Amino acid sequence: MKARFARQRSFTSFVAPLMALVLALDASAQDVKTVERSGDGRQVCGLGKDFHVGRRKALCAGLKNGIVLVRGLPEPRDYRRFTQDKVFWYLTGIESSGATVIVDVATARTTLFLPARNTMKESWDGEIWDASDDWVKELTGVDEIKKSSQLVKTLETLTAQDKTIWISTEPYVALTGCFDQAAEADDAQAKDPLDGRKSREDQLSAQLRELFKADVKDFSPVLDEMRRVKTIEEIGAMRRAGRSGALAMAEAMRSTRPGIGEWELDGLMSFIQQKEGAAGAAYNAIVGSGANSLVLHYMASARTMQDGEMLLIDYAPEVDHYTCDITRSWPVNGTFSPRQAELYDIVLESQKAGIAAVKPGATISSVSRACGEVFKARGVSKFQKHGPCHYIGMEAHDVGDYDKPLVPGVAFTVEPGLYETETGIGIRIEDVVIVTETGCEVVSSLVPRERAEIERLIREEGVLDWLQRPAQPLASK
Amino acid sequence: MKARFARQRSFTSFVAPLMALVLALDASAQDVKTVERSGDGRQVCGLGKDFHVGRRKALCAGLKNGIVLVRGLPEPRDYRRFTQDKVFWYLTGIESSGATVIVDVATARTTLFLPARNTMKESWDGEIWDASDDWVKELTGVDEIKKSSQLVKTLETLTAQDKTIWISTEPYVALTGCFDQAAEADDAQAKDPLDGRKSREDQLSAQLRELFKADVKDFSPVLDEMRRVKTIEEIGAMRRAGRSGALAMAEAMRSTRPGIGEWELDGLMSFIQQKEGAAGAAYNAIVGSGANSLVLHYMASARTMQDGEMLLIDYAPEVDHYTCDITRSWPVNGTFSPRQAELYDIVLESQKAGIAAVKPGATISSVSRACGEVFKARGVSKFQKHGPCHYIGMEAHDVGDYDKPLVPGVAFTVEPGLYETETGIGIRIEDVVIVTETGCEVVSSLVPRERAEIERLIREEGVLDWLQRPAQPLASK
Repeated sequence: MKARFARQRSFTSFVAPLMALVLALDASAQDVKTVERSGDGRQVCGLGKDFHVGRRKALCAGLKNGIVLVRGLPEPRDYRRFTQDKVFWYLTGIESSGATVIVDVATARTTLFLPARNTMKESWDGEIWDASDDWVKELTGVDEIKKSSQLVKTLETLTAQDKTIWISTEPYVALTGCFDQAAEADDAQAKDPLDGRKSREDQLSAQLRELFKADVKDFSPVLDEMRRVKTIEEIGAMRRAGRSGALAMAEAMRSTRPGIGEWELDGLMSFIQQKEGAAGAAYNAIVGSGANSLVLHYMASARTMQDGEMLLIDYAPEVDHYTCDITRSWPVNGTFSPRQAELYDIVLESQKAGIAAVKPGATISSVSRACGEVFKARGVSKFQKHGPCHYIGMEAHDVGDYDKPLVPGVAFTVEPGLYETETGIGIRIEDVVIVTETGCEVVSSLVPRERAEIERLIREEGVLDWLQRPAQPLASK
Repeated sequence: MKARFARQRSFTSFVAPLMALVLALDASAQDVKTVERSGDGRQVCGLGKDFHVGRRKALCAGLKNGIVLVRGLPEPRDYRRFTQDKVFWYLTGIESSGATVIVDVATARTTLFLPARNTMKESWDGEIWDASDDWVKELTGVDEIKKSSQLVKTLETLTAQDKTIWISTEPYVALTGCFDQAAEADDAQAKDPLDGRKSREDQLSAQLRELFKADVKDFSPVLDEMRRVKTIEEIGAMRRAGRSGALAMAEAMRSTRPGIGEWELDGLMSFIQQKEGAAGAAYNAIVGSGANSLVLHYMASARTMQDGEMLLIDYAPEVDHYTCDITRSWPVNGTFSPRQAELYDIVLESQKAGIAAVKPGATISSVSRACGEVFKARGVSKFQKHGPCHYIGMEAHDVGDYDKPLVPGVAFTVEPGLYETETGIGIRIEDVVIVTETGCEVVSSLVPRERAEIERLIREEGVLDWLQRPAQPLASK
């Protein structure tokens, strides 16, 4: 709908200076997708079959012999919408539960295993991709479709010729997930004396060795480097995530005032993100007022904000399987106090220095150093708590080797922060950048960073202000 | 905040007739909690330590000898907020990860095991309940706190005297979870030839037998009957969930019109639910327009609604660990067509007949029969797809024996539905009732059911209408 751009106009002018930083990767760089849900109710294959077929070919090119085996996730344990494992999705674009794919490394020929048709279940749950759905082959570009019940038999046949099976040994991750958190949890479960169950990946390895005497190998090193450098399709999705997240953050600014609950801005942002294309959160909202602004992963959103406090919001969505990561910090009452302003300007200067240092050949270390040097020069290094950069892509903390030099298509965050315990002032400014031929594009640039611009947005009427008015009939309805 | 009641005024008058059905369980029946987040940022013990201590005593009274062992959930695998296992929460009120409780059946003496303090982790994540937190004992009413590392040793000592350990063998469930969905998923995993891992509960049983030669018994039959009959504290939480869900549904009506995406109403409702106290969804939103209104658990929310279609929304929140379950059906363009109206009135008549049949001594079967008889009399039984009742409480489909007669405090849904494939008209009307001494209370009654009232709400300006206006400075800010 066109109308949703109306509210953007009021801060378009703020964005202009930032736009100067944006160096387009291609002519369509500033295009944003204008349908908010891919397919508008029709089945789609991720970012398009060409992208996913291409990813399978690129993976096979980096391996030697044998087969690649990747299992999609089963149906959820709870009444949430099914969300797919990131690695399975990257290689197939398939969003339906209970799917498995086998790819022949030599030829990249792909066999997809789907559940048998279950008409009763479909009448309750809607379309479930199954082995009788002829359209799946055309939509996804796989070469053959078999029933899931044929998977073991097929593996027996294939391993009779070559024992090599490539799998991902990294912990599976879906919406709102991240390998770092998942790995810790899987590890803790394996070590728990009253539990001790293996991770999904360790169990899969064990079963493949047990059932087929397979030589199980890990394709993650090859895949992780592929994932580190984004294709044009992936950059499109990251721009959409950046736009969705930026619009939500701007609405949070408009609704901020003393007496509002952290949970209200949390909920408001989730709403705007979803309205603007998000499948859900990239990570749980961090909405910290007052002392909570000092807690880096504060997740409770349980406190009422007070006059005079700082508010730090670190929250962004996932759109089309790609995440964004945005942080802004602003005063609850809409006007920066002298100390808030002083620290804010230093953090912004640091972030700008970091972003200016991004270009091919630079490294995550050199960008981090550029941020840190501003803090050192201003004498505030002691208020730091964390480094300013991490990779981002399908996961908020994405995979990839941090020692490799930056090349066009690498995406990461620049997020310096200062946390002054005595005053309860926590300030972090975070945007996602994608390396271009000559610098970088800031995909979350639609949300302002300059103090005057933020103060102006807070003065505008927000959704939470409006919801306090008595409801009125709408003349045009 | 008082202001949030302002928008309610416009449909207070609609609610009056329904209120006549409400037979208060106690004098505070119509009180709604006026803080939207329990504790407003401070630590709380669930519904209060008296409630949870009382639940432990009631459970022990239904068992014989030995100990009760219940394990809270570990930290999440993803970057979502921690949510507790329902059974552990019911017996303790504790919302922090990695906790375990042992209760001596003879005395109900309770030992709580918590992780050791981790200051670094707390600086990142905020307060984590640990074994050094003295205030936990007072807040929760447990008798003793030990470090998690002492759990195995303690079990060794206890099982040297009595080998009986009572656990819950039902699948663990947290926010948005449900035992039916969880059991199916656990079962599928155990039977998957490339996985085969046991459920958490089966694994716990196996470990207790292996490590301590324990005689493992299931306390679920006793606990499930306790859970079937709600206490006054639980009824309070269910009322809050009903109120939060009803306000959200009313806002969805206000924002409905052709051209809106299903996902926009999904997101809007989640926002209003959260604003009004929800921890999250009781279950994934079902927002089905046109043919999607016929799909009982349609979850995609991916389609743009069209003029002339019916819209069916089945969505409700969880507040303070208790869920609600609400469905309403209305026309996308705001005016019921003759056929939509005809079917709607039959479903409403059926639901009213079901609700009128609720009283102590009745059964789920007799209430279902009352609903069905209306359909039979009107000759529309062939458009049914499901029964009209299920228990509700901590889970949307709650535990409990369906053959037992109703007693005051039993909560369940009354949700007849008709689904006419040829016209794409799906209609379901669902509310949650709690049995009282003489009838029942409808906890979700704040959202209208009469056609004229629904049409009036749709004509009011909604959040989505307002968001299309250009942003304006707010004079008072």
